[in-house]
Amino acid sequence: MDEKAKKTALLMIPYGLFVLGAKHGNNSTVATVNWVTQASFNPPLVVVGIKKDSGLHAMVKESKVFSLSMLETGQKAIASGFFRHVEPKDGKFGNYAFTTGRNGAPIISDAPASVECEVVGFYELGDHSIVVGKVTEAQVQREAEPLTMKETGYQYGG
Amino acid sequence: MDEKAKKTALLMIPYGLFVLGAKHGNNSTVATVNWVTQASFNPPLVVVGIKKDSGLHAMVKESKVFSLSMLETGQKAIASGFFRHVEPKDGKFGNYAFTTGRNGAPIISDAPASVECEVVGFYELGDHSIVVGKVTEAQVQREAEPLTMKETGYQYGG
Repeated sequence: MDEKAKKTALLMIPYGLFVLGAKHGNNSTVATVNWVTQASFNPPLVVVGIKKDSGLHAMVKESKVFSLSMLETGQKAIASGFFRHVEPKDGKFGNYAFTTGRNGAPIISDAPASVECEVVGFYELGDHSIVVGKVTEAQVQREAEPLTMKETGYQYGG
Repeated sequence: MDEKAKKTALLMIPYGLFVLGAKHGNNSTVATVNWVTQASFNPPLVVVGIKKDSGLHAMVKESKVFSLSMLETGQKAIASGFFRHVEPKDGKFGNYAFTTGRNGAPIISDAPASVECEVVGFYELGDHSIVVGKVTEAQVQREAEPLTMKETGYQYGG
């Protein structure tokens, strides 16, 4: 296989950016992800690729719940704030306030919308696991155009 | 759960459009899909949501191979040509010529790039199955901006 062609072809898949929220016991964390797709209407399923060697991965695997805060155009700063682990403090992750979903996972307060999920599939086939979540709750604060990888200039794929 | 909020929130996930190619024995088919994400760098994995009651689904499940032809900006007509089943005839699906990948799956000749995959996971958890493909081949004809659901005005999700 032509590795360069593989990278170029896979980078043609467009993505949005999302803040994944996880909790386990009294711990919670958030991280920016882009490998996200819906995968069923009924039941409503989403798939997220989660890096295997991350704290987030361990937490979601144990607790079997997560949230996805949708980011909207203009919210690149939120995305870039959560590429690395940040500890929650005084109701905030870094500069950003969060609320707690019904499933216990943190949701970024400034996000235009979010979903909460229960893990119904967890497949460890590569350097990221394929995590399947059934949507159990959804909140919309406002309809918004999503933040895209194209807008941010970031690349994650290939 | 608020069904309307769920729909609105899930429709904030941005997507591209792709032509999925499948073959089984002497049969082959193509269909437009948008629920696609990469899911690992090493090995290179992609996830595709494939409608369970489709001919494509049966074919991929049996043959364990597929291709993804990336579509580029301006190629909405190709996407709309493959929402319904089309039989291959004289080297074309409808108006569009195809070639055959190394794994036997059809690839749209006008696509700027494509990948061929071997199925390494097939999870039937909803009305679409979560099909995990390991990328085994990739071809790039030209670098291009992807066709997005936003550009087409189509929606598939929620």
